[in-house]
Amino acid sequence: MLDDDIRTTTSATILADGDGDSPRRTGVWFIGGRGSVATTATLGLHAVSRGLAPETGLVSQLEEVAQAGLVGFDSLVVGGHDVGTHSLADRAAELAEGGVFHPALVAALREELDAADRRIRPGVPAGGHQREASDRIQQDLTAFRDEHGLDRVVVVDVSSTEPPAPDHPALHDLDRLEQELDAGRAPLPPSSLYSYAAFRAGCPVVAFTPSTGPNIPALADLAKEAEVPWAGRDGKTGETLVKATLAPLFARRALHVRSWAAMNLLGGGDGRTLAEPAAAVSKTTTKALTVQSIVGYPVEGPVRIDYVEDLGDWKTAWDHITFDGFLGTRMTMQFTWQGCDSALAAPLVLDLARLVARAHEVGESGPLAPLGFFFKEPIGASTHALDEQWATLTRWCARLAPTP
Amino acid sequence: MLDDDIRTTTSATILADGDGDSPRRTGVWFIGGRGSVATTATLGLHAVSRGLAPETGLVSQLEEVAQAGLVGFDSLVVGGHDVGTHSLADRAAELAEGGVFHPALVAALREELDAADRRIRPGVPAGGHQREASDRIQQDLTAFRDEHGLDRVVVVDVSSTEPPAPDHPALHDLDRLEQELDAGRAPLPPSSLYSYAAFRAGCPVVAFTPSTGPNIPALADLAKEAEVPWAGRDGKTGETLVKATLAPLFARRALHVRSWAAMNLLGGGDGRTLAEPAAAVSKTTTKALTVQSIVGYPVEGPVRIDYVEDLGDWKTAWDHITFDGFLGTRMTMQFTWQGCDSALAAPLVLDLARLVARAHEVGESGPLAPLGFFFKEPIGASTHALDEQWATLTRWCARLAPTP
Amino acid sequence: MLDDDIRTTTSATILADGDGDSPRRTGVWFIGGRGSVATTATLGLHAVSRGLAPETGLVSQLEEVAQAGLVGFDSLVVGGHDVGTHSLADRAAELAEGGVFHPALVAALREELDAADRRIRPGVPAGGHQREASDRIQQDLTAFRDEHGLDRVVVVDVSSTEPPAPDHPALHDLDRLEQELDAGRAPLPPSSLYSYAAFRAGCPVVAFTPSTGPNIPALADLAKEAEVPWAGRDGKTGETLVKATLAPLFARRALHVRSWAAMNLLGGGDGRTLAEPAAAVSKTTTKALTVQSIVGYPVEGPVRIDYVEDLGDWKTAWDHITFDGFLGTRMTMQFTWQGCDSALAAPLVLDLARLVARAHEVGESGPLAPLGFFFKEPIGASTHALDEQWATLTRWCARLAPTP
Amino acid sequence: MLDDDIRTTTSATILADGDGDSPRRTGVWFIGGRGSVATTATLGLHAVSRGLAPETGLVSQLEEVAQAGLVGFDSLVVGGHDVGTHSLADRAAELAEGGVFHPALVAALREELDAADRRIRPGVPAGGHQREASDRIQQDLTAFRDEHGLDRVVVVDVSSTEPPAPDHPALHDLDRLEQELDAGRAPLPPSSLYSYAAFRAGCPVVAFTPSTGPNIPALADLAKEAEVPWAGRDGKTGETLVKATLAPLFARRALHVRSWAAMNLLGGGDGRTLAEPAAAVSKTTTKALTVQSIVGYPVEGPVRIDYVEDLGDWKTAWDHITFDGFLGTRMTMQFTWQGCDSALAAPLVLDLARLVARAHEVGESGPLAPLGFFFKEPIGASTHALDEQWATLTRWCARLAPTP
Repeated sequence: MLDDDIRTTTSATILADGDGDSPRRTGVWFIGGRGSVATTATLGLHAVSRGLAPETGLVSQLEEVAQAGLVGFDSLVVGGHDVGTHSLADRAAELAEGGVFHPALVAALREELDAADRRIRPGVPAGGHQREASDRIQQDLTAFRDEHGLDRVVVVDVSSTEPPAPDHPALHDLDRLEQELDAGRAPLPPSSLYSYAAFRAGCPVVAFTPSTGPNIPALADLAKEAEVPWAGRDGKTGETLVKATLAPLFARRALHVRSWAAMNLLGGGDGRTLAEPAAAVSKTTTKALTVQSIVGYPVEGPVRIDYVEDLGDWKTAWDHITFDGFLGTRMTMQFTWQGCDSALAAPLVLDLARLVARAHEVGESGPLAPLGFFFKEPIGASTHALDEQWATLTRWCARLAPTP
Repeated sequence: MLDDDIRTTTSATILADGDGDSPRRTGVWFIGGRGSVATTATLGLHAVSRGLAPETGLVSQLEEVAQAGLVGFDSLVVGGHDVGTHSLADRAAELAEGGVFHPALVAALREELDAADRRIRPGVPAGGHQREASDRIQQDLTAFRDEHGLDRVVVVDVSSTEPPAPDHPALHDLDRLEQELDAGRAPLPPSSLYSYAAFRAGCPVVAFTPSTGPNIPALADLAKEAEVPWAGRDGKTGETLVKATLAPLFARRALHVRSWAAMNLLGGGDGRTLAEPAAAVSKTTTKALTVQSIVGYPVEGPVRIDYVEDLGDWKTAWDHITFDGFLGTRMTMQFTWQGCDSALAAPLVLDLARLVARAHEVGESGPLAPLGFFFKEPIGASTHALDEQWATLTRWCARLAPTP
Repeated sequence: MLDDDIRTTTSATILADGDGDSPRRTGVWFIGGRGSVATTATLGLHAVSRGLAPETGLVSQLEEVAQAGLVGFDSLVVGGHDVGTHSLADRAAELAEGGVFHPALVAALREELDAADRRIRPGVPAGGHQREASDRIQQDLTAFRDEHGLDRVVVVDVSSTEPPAPDHPALHDLDRLEQELDAGRAPLPPSSLYSYAAFRAGCPVVAFTPSTGPNIPALADLAKEAEVPWAGRDGKTGETLVKATLAPLFARRALHVRSWAAMNLLGGGDGRTLAEPAAAVSKTTTKALTVQSIVGYPVEGPVRIDYVEDLGDWKTAWDHITFDGFLGTRMTMQFTWQGCDSALAAPLVLDLARLVARAHEVGESGPLAPLGFFFKEPIGASTHALDEQWATLTRWCARLAPTP
Repeated sequence: MLDDDIRTTTSATILADGDGDSPRRTGVWFIGGRGSVATTATLGLHAVSRGLAPETGLVSQLEEVAQAGLVGFDSLVVGGHDVGTHSLADRAAELAEGGVFHPALVAALREELDAADRRIRPGVPAGGHQREASDRIQQDLTAFRDEHGLDRVVVVDVSSTEPPAPDHPALHDLDRLEQELDAGRAPLPPSSLYSYAAFRAGCPVVAFTPSTGPNIPALADLAKEAEVPWAGRDGKTGETLVKATLAPLFARRALHVRSWAAMNLLGGGDGRTLAEPAAAVSKTTTKALTVQSIVGYPVEGPVRIDYVEDLGDWKTAWDHITFDGFLGTRMTMQFTWQGCDSALAAPLVLDLARLVARAHEVGESGPLAPLGFFFKEPIGASTHALDEQWATLTRWCARLAPTP
C-alpha cells in the first residue's frame, strides 16, 4: 500500500548527487536479473526515484551513510544476465500478487520495467568452455557501459545459491587459472566465472549470495591487479541480522549463552534451493558462525532451513536461546521473524551498488571490509556484531565524504 | 545448579583490586535489604567471592569495564534498611525453592547471610517527621561506615516501587526543602527521603527502581553541593533491555516501526506492586520511551504489566512489533523473554555499587550519565540504544583506569 | 488470491437446498449492515454462490452440519440497518486493500454489493422514544420480507459492542417493559431494542456480539411467546476458539492449569471499541470464563484487549499457559493466533443464519443451546469445550435432517 | 515442589481398587527399567501411593476412566530389564537435579527405589541366539510373577527408540518366525524380541516407543493365540498431543490448513537418539501423519527433531501453521510447548499398565484400539483426533466397569 504521508518525500532529495557535481552515471548489473530480488530492486529503484514509494529500508539514505557522497538513484541504470526468459513485468506482477509490494506500483512502472527487461542478456552455460563464456560476459558488460555512457558498472550477484564448489588448484593461483581457461576448461563455479569476467572488465562486484563468487584467492588477486573493489558475502537480511543484533546483548551483560537453535521456514525458489542439503551447507555454516564469533565461545544448537512452499516469498524464522544468568540461573529467549526476503534484500542491493561504486570512484580496491554490516560472512572484517559493523560503516562513510 | 567447569574460576582473579593497591573497603547499603534483589545480590557477592559461583552476569568483571579499577568483591560489606523482619537466610531459602539459585549455595553461605542480616536496620516510617527520620538514616549510615572502617558507603535503592509522587514546591528548591523538613513536615516521597539522607551523609546513591529517589531538582542540587555522584534510574533487566538492543536494528536498517506492543507477566512481590495501576504508570512510561527515543519518531502500542502469582520471581514478556520494509512491505517480529528478575537485577546492583564507588573515589559528582547502560531511564544521558550506551560506558571506564 | 483448484467447486453443490424442495427464500438482516463483518459476509455469500470462492470457513457446508437441510446460499437475501452511509462497495474496497480478501472479488461482485447496499435502512437513534423506534424497525423488517417474498428473515447483530447496560426492572419483566415503551421511555440498550423489534416482527435473532441483545429475561419471554428461536452470544472466532479447543487437552490429560494469560492486540473499529475499558468488560469477562468452565476450577491470569491501530482488521493474540504435570513438574505452553476478524466472523454469521432459519422452519423457539459451538458465551448450554459443542451441534443437525 | 493444597489428596482415594474387591496384584515390567521414564514412573507410583504427590497427570484417576475398575496403585509391583547398571536412586537424583521432580521425593522414597532396583534384571544382548534370549526373558517374567504372587504382569517398553528394522519374512509369519528362532537365528528387532517373550509368557504388552515391538503380523498372531491384549504405539506426550487437539479445530471450522511445520528441540538420551537421522525416521513419520489424518488431505511441512544437549530432560517444540479462512484469507497460528518428557510420559505408562491389566482381566486380547488416546500411532484405531479418542476411551471404560 502506498503510504501517503511518507510518499511526499520529494524526488529532489533523493536524486541529489552526493558531491553536488555533474551526475556520475552508474550501471547496476544483476546476475539473476529476472529473479525476485533483482525484480524488486529494479522496481523499487524507480518507485523511490519517482517518489512513488518512501525510502524505507534504504540504509544508504540514512544521513550517516549518505554522507559518503553516493550516486543518485536517477543516475543508476539497471541491466543483467539471466537464464530465465519471463519478463520483469510478469515477475513483478507475481510478486505483487504474493504481497511483496502493491500492484499499483507494477502498473505505474510498467515502462521502466520493460526498458530494464530489454537490457537483460541471456546467462552463460555453467560448464563448457569458460574462457569463451567469460569473453561473452565481458562483452555484455562493456556494451552496457558504452551504450548508456556509464562511468562504471557494479556487478551484483543475486542468482540462486550454488552448492559448495569442489576445490581446484586453479582457484588458488591466478596464473594457473588463466592457463586452465585458455585450455578451454571449466575450473570455476558459475558465480566465480561471472566475478572473473567482471574484474577483467574493470567492474566492482557485490557477492550477495553464499555462492563462491569472488571469494577465492585467484580472484582476490585479480581484483587487486585490476584495482577494483568488491564486497561480500551473503546478504544479512533476516534471522542472522537479528542474531547479529542480539548476541552482543548477551556478551555485554556477561550472560552465558548455553544454546541457540535457529529454524528457518521459507518458500519461493530460494527456499527450495536452500533446503537442498547440499546448498544448505553454505548457508547454515555462515549462519552458525555469527553467534559464536560474537560471544567468543562455541554455542551448541542446530541451524535449519526448511522449505514450505506455501510461504512464497515469505520466511518465518524461530530462534530459541537458553542462557545462564547470575548464579547459574537458567533463562530463555525466543523470537520469530516474519519477513519478506525480496523486500529485505532489494534495498540492500541498491545500497551496496551505490557504496561500492563510491569506493571505486575514490580508488579503493580489494575486499571492502567496512561493508560487513550488510553480510552474513563479512569478507575481510573481524566482527559479526551489528553495532560494531555499524560504527565501522559510518566511520568509513565519513572518510569517503566529498570535501565541500 | 553449580556448574563445575565454570566454578573453577579462582577467587584470586575476582578479588584483585583494580589498582593493585591496598583494599579500599566499600559499603553497599540496600534500601530494601531483605527483598529478593538484595538477598540475591548479598548471597551472590559471597558466592562469587568464595569461588562458589561463576562471574556470569557481572558486567563489572568484563575487561572493558573492569579496567576502571574497581573495588574487589571481598572488600565489599553489605548492610541496609528494611521494614521486613524475616531473615536473609529464610528469604534466600525461599528464592532457592523458587529456582532462582541452587539450594546448596544457601547452605554454604549461611554464616555470611546471617552476618549481613545483623547489619540490616529497621526502615523509617514513610510519613511523619521526615527530619527526624533522615537523621536516623544518616546515623545508621555513619555508624555502618565507622564500625566497618569503610572508605565509602554506596546506598542502593532496591525497595518496592512507589506510586508516582505528588509534586511539591519543596522538591524543586533545596532551601525550601530544608525549611519544610525543619518544620517537621514530610514533603518527600520515601525513596527521596533515603536519597536525601544519603547525600547528607556524603554517600553516593544508586536508584535502581522507578521510584522518585534522587531524581528531583532539590536533591540534584544537594548531590552537587555534597560532591557525591549518583546513578539512575530503574534497572534495565529484561524486556526493556531487549528493546534497547533491538530498536537500533530497525533504525540502522531504515525499517519503519509501525507498532510495538509489550506485554509483561510477572509474579512475586514486584509483580503485585507493579500491576497496581498507580505504580504501573511509573514503570510503563519509562518502558515506552525506549523505542521512540531510539527510532526517533512516535511508535504506537500498549505497554502492560500484569500480575500472575504463579510465576513467582519469574517473568515472561511478549513483544509484538510490526514494521515496514522496502516499498512498504509489512513484516512482523515477536519475542518472548523468560527471565528471573532477581537474578537479572542482582549482579547489576553489584556492578553499579562498584562503578559508583570508583566515580566517588576519583571525585565525580552529580548524575553519572555514562551509566545509562544499566537503566531504563538513563538520567543525564541522551541515548537509550544499548550499543551506544555500551560504547559510552567503556570509554568512561577507560578514562577512570588507574594509571599504572 | 482466488485459489484455482478450490474454485472449481460448482455452484450446483452449493446451491442445492437441503431438502431438495422448492427454494425457501430467507432474509438475512444485519444490524450493522455496512460494518466489516456484514460487508465480508455479503460479499462472501455472493462469491461462494457464484463459485468465485471456495467454501472454506463455512461450517454449514460440512456434511455433518449440512445434513440439517439448510437453505441454499442463492436463496438468501441480505438487508440491514446501519447508522453509517458509506457504501458497501467502498467498505469492501477498503477491506480488500487491507488484505481481508482479493480486490478482484470486489470488482466481480460490484452489482450484488450495490443491490445489497440499497436494502440497508438507516439505524434508529439509541435513546429517545423506543416504542417509535421499535415500530420503525418492525416496519423495515416487514417491508423487506414482503418486497422480496421471503419465508422468513433472520436478524443478525454484528454492530459495535456496547458497554454493559445498566440494569432496569423492565429488563426482567415483559409486561413492565411494554409499559415503559408505551410510556415513551427508553429502558433498553440499543442491541436489545433491535431484538425486541425482531421478535415482535416474528424474526429469529442471532446475537453475534457481546452486547446484551436478546439475552434478558423480558426478551427471552417474548421470544417464547412469539415462538421464534434465537442464538447467542458473542461469536467465537479467535483466541477463545483456541482456548475452547486446548483447555480440554489439559482436563483430559489431568494436567493442572496454574495460569492462563491472554493478550489480544487488534486494530479496526472493533479494536478501538473493545479496548475501551467499559466495553472490554463485556468481552474479557466471557473470554475468561471459557477455561475455568472447562477445567472445572478457577484459573488465574489476565485477559486483555489492546488497540493497535496499525493492525487494521487483523488481530494477534498471545496466550501464555503454565501447568503442572506429574509430580508437580512445571511446564508452559504458549500460542499466537494471527487472524483476520472479519474473515473469521463472516462465514459463521452465514452459518448461523442458515441454522437458525432451519430451526425456525421446524418450529423450534427460545435460545438454541446446540449452537454453543459458535459462541463465547453459549446461551442455554452447559459446556464451553469445543469438542462437546461439536458433538451436540452435529447430533442436533442430524435430528433436523429432512426425512427423505 | 510439593504442593501443599493438592497433597492433601488422601491415599485412601487413590488406593481403592476399582471393584472394591480383594486386591488384584499386578506387575509392571519395564523394558528400560532404569531409564528416565521408568525411573519417574516408579518414583511417582510410590509418591502418589503414599500421598506425597497429587494425582496430576494420571488419566486413569479421572472419573470417566477410573470407572473401568482399575487395579489400585498399591497393588502394583515394579520390575524390569535394563542394560544399564547405575541405580534407580542415582538416576532419580539426577532427574531431580534436572528439575523433573522435587529432590525431597527421592529422599523420602529411597527405600522403595532401592527395592525396585533389586527387581531389575540385566537386559539381553540384541543379536545372537534369540531363542535363548527369549527363554531368559520369559524366565525373568515368570520368576517375577511367582515371587511376588502377581495375578498378571504387564510388560511396558520404555527403552530407547530403535532405528527402523529391516523387513524379514519371519516378521510376517509366526511359523516361519518360530523356525528361525529354533534355528538359532536373530530375525527380530530387539523390541520385538521382548514382545515375543512377553506374549509367550502370557503377559500383555504396552509399546510406548516408536520401535517395532509387537507391531508385526507374526506377533499380532501370537498375541491372539496367547489371548493377551497389547497396546501401542509411541506415547503421545507433547507436540503430537497438541496437534491431535488442535487439528480438529481446523477441520470443524472448515479452515483449510496450508502448511504445518513442526520443530522439536530436545536434550537427554532420548534427544540424542531421536535426532539420529535413522531413528528420527520412525518418530517423524508417525508425527506427520496426525494432522493429515485428521483434516483429511495432505498437508505440507517439515517435521524435525533436533538435539540440544543443554535442554536435558526438557523439550521445546515450535509449530507454525498457515491456513486459509473465508474467501482464501491467509492466517497463521503458532505454538510452543515446553514440557518435561519424563514427567509427561511417566503417568501415561502407569495409566496404560492399569488399563491393559484390566483388559486382560476381562478377557480382551489383540491390539486395544480404544487406547488410541495415548498413542501417536494408535494401532487398530481409525482416528488421530484427541476428542474422538477420548470419547472412545471413556465409552470403553464404561463398558469395562465392574457390575456393582
